[in-house]
Amino acid sequence: MALVVIGGNAAGMSAAARARRLDPRLEIVVLEKGPAISYGTCGLPYLVEGRVREAQQLIVYTPEYFRKERKIDVRTGVRAVSISHPRREVMLESGARLRYDHLVIATGARCDSMGIAGAAQPHVFTLHTLEDAERMRRFLREKQPGRAVVIGAGYIGVEAADALRRNGLHVTVVEQSRNLLLRGEPEFTGAVRKQLEDHGVELRTGVRVASIEPDRVGDIPCQMVVLAAGFRPNIEMASEAGVEIGRTGAIRTDERMETSLRGVYAAGDCAEVMHLVTGRPTYIPLGTSANKAGRVAGANVAGARERFPGVVGTSIVGIFGTAFATTGLSIEQARAEGFSPVAARIEAQARPRYFQGKKTTVELVADRASRRLLGGWVIGEEGAAGRIDVIATALHSRLRVDEFEQLDLAYSPPFATVWDPLLIAAQQLMKEK
Amino acid sequence: MALVVIGGNAAGMSAAARARRLDPRLEIVVLEKGPAISYGTCGLPYLVEGRVREAQQLIVYTPEYFRKERKIDVRTGVRAVSISHPRREVMLESGARLRYDHLVIATGARCDSMGIAGAAQPHVFTLHTLEDAERMRRFLREKQPGRAVVIGAGYIGVEAADALRRNGLHVTVVEQSRNLLLRGEPEFTGAVRKQLEDHGVELRTGVRVASIEPDRVGDIPCQMVVLAAGFRPNIEMASEAGVEIGRTGAIRTDERMETSLRGVYAAGDCAEVMHLVTGRPTYIPLGTSANKAGRVAGANVAGARERFPGVVGTSIVGIFGTAFATTGLSIEQARAEGFSPVAARIEAQARPRYFQGKKTTVELVADRASRRLLGGWVIGEEGAAGRIDVIATALHSRLRVDEFEQLDLAYSPPFATVWDPLLIAAQQLMKEK
Repeated sequence: MALVVIGGNAAGMSAAARARRLDPRLEIVVLEKGPAISYGTCGLPYLVEGRVREAQQLIVYTPEYFRKERKIDVRTGVRAVSISHPRREVMLESGARLRYDHLVIATGARCDSMGIAGAAQPHVFTLHTLEDAERMRRFLREKQPGRAVVIGAGYIGVEAADALRRNGLHVTVVEQSRNLLLRGEPEFTGAVRKQLEDHGVELRTGVRVASIEPDRVGDIPCQMVVLAAGFRPNIEMASEAGVEIGRTGAIRTDERMETSLRGVYAAGDCAEVMHLVTGRPTYIPLGTSANKAGRVAGANVAGARERFPGVVGTSIVGIFGTAFATTGLSIEQARAEGFSPVAARIEAQARPRYFQGKKTTVELVADRASRRLLGGWVIGEEGAAGRIDVIATALHSRLRVDEFEQLDLAYSPPFATVWDPLLIAAQQLMKEK
Repeated sequence: MALVVIGGNAAGMSAAARARRLDPRLEIVVLEKGPAISYGTCGLPYLVEGRVREAQQLIVYTPEYFRKERKIDVRTGVRAVSISHPRREVMLESGARLRYDHLVIATGARCDSMGIAGAAQPHVFTLHTLEDAERMRRFLREKQPGRAVVIGAGYIGVEAADALRRNGLHVTVVEQSRNLLLRGEPEFTGAVRKQLEDHGVELRTGVRVASIEPDRVGDIPCQMVVLAAGFRPNIEMASEAGVEIGRTGAIRTDERMETSLRGVYAAGDCAEVMHLVTGRPTYIPLGTSANKAGRVAGANVAGARERFPGVVGTSIVGIFGTAFATTGLSIEQARAEGFSPVAARIEAQARPRYFQGKKTTVELVADRASRRLLGGWVIGEEGAAGRIDVIATALHSRLRVDEFEQLDLAYSPPFATVWDPLLIAAQQLMKEK
């Protein structure tokens, strides 16, 4: 039996590695169009910034490691161009054909240039691959640009702005919507804006960029531009092969990560995942779910029956030392999904004042009638990751606010307050009828 | 209607404050035998250590605050000596009587001297009240002791050892059982032992202290002794009044925190709480559950119908900068409770290496047949509080290991790894059949 995996990053390599672990005799070929596999894409902004000193530090495993230690035939610099499922073949750019019994499509996503003219100039960058990051680093060193414009205020845009600002550039972030980090709540976006501005990053929202000039974006002069306006799933090859595409525009799969074609799986940034709060497929391209879904796809290829039930939409981003973490639905998103939501927001000490604890802000959203928790966000310099994870766990478990309010969370002065900010927020939410 | 609360710390003041908020017209009297109310008991070791500079910093609210702002008649230095429920009266040491309609018993616990002879000497300390901590601090300053013995390796004992060692003393901790921090797993106790010894604290387990001499404990010379061998709930007054005592030796209540006598509630270190993993009442005297249970008792006094469902046994303690956090049942405890448990333990990066992330250790315990998660522990310098809280939330929600393994936890390089140590531990546990 032969498994072919198209794409050698998080989802693809997780699938290959898991399939190998469960089936030592499977033939496994991974096709990766780029020069490297299995690298920490989420670390790229820190490579640009300089906190990560070498690209090498982001590479988890090399092709040689997989070839020798796992007997996985990893082929880098090899591009698949089409799939013939009736023949169970993948066609390569070279003209060669590769037979499969099982196929995992892990083709990822690409940066969306949003039809902006001038995106191909040498001073315009995306931040999606190791080469992108290295090219940006070289440009910073050689051209010493003084001003940058970042297009898009999602995670990558904000992380890029942070990285460039720390390199001494004057940075302006331009976002066409009113959302920051994909969320629209005024208190959340207000906090993101304040954090950026307090650290010298200018932010302009509701501004649509039509074109990038050699020395400016609109009326903003700059010597470099980062295009971070969002991602588009790489689905074309799958779609042409007859794989069903979901309403989100990404590849539709079942819980086993199998597509509409038997024996063809999809995982990672090219595929949908189930949103466990809404109960509907969603497109949230993140490394965490790419790894989980890839691992499940690999297990099923090897004959196991595993499920990846889905995500609750958890994410976290650091902006100049403060964490902005979200999970589940915002109150607007909840309303749009047909819930009748209520929300409460509090500010409290993350740890006791006498331990130099910092303040943290927590918002929780719940359904008015069922009292089921639907989402929340946490902003703070300390403990935000742990707290958003508690909310995420509660969302997975469909906890009600009254249950959440009574959680037996750890307390000791060096680590937390006796009433954790999460519990204070829940108490506040209990009052919202 | 009149509410009398006996005891003015976490549980008592939570009850009084909540009752007042829900019923502005209730007469509320709080009787506190000590000079202060509402202080952060868990901060006492840090007052001894010196990181908390003044006792004042641990006092959350003063009696004056409650009298003026909340119209709660707080009487400090007033000792209740008996309760006559048929007459709805509390008798005070002064001979005065106080009528109640509702009574909240929040009499707390006392340090158990374990029948050790010589415990009343001036160089022997407990660490249970503000006065205890201040007396210890004065002793350290004035007598400049060089060597201390701590009796008991529970939370207080270990925190006291840390505090004294940081003050330059040579410290020996003596524990009669093999348990450290109330847990018996060899890997966990081994890590506690190593952390203590690496920081110059000597630990002797399986040693029973019979008496304390003026200059030594057994064969260990010392100029001061901290008695931290455990707590006994203060139940005598309640018991004499006919309040039912549970099998744990603490006051039994229902979910509303009402005792066997109608209108009489109990909360905090004098009362049992339900253990949500075992489904049986337990005695775990901690500030977190004291506050929650007190708050629920106060609400019910004021006519609400609220429940405190119970705890999962979460706790955390810092030892020389590393967190030791536990929740739920250890594998031995699970076995003793009739489960057929399996466990898995992993060591992993708490954050990426390229962010100077530290290693963390996670153990998870589950029931073999039902796959339900039963407990776990986390040891690490970073993120242990958040991770134990995720396990605790999963225990509240009765998650199975396969559900836990798929939790959508937050990831970004400054905060976590793409496979959180919790998920790696769950993957490992999935393999244990």
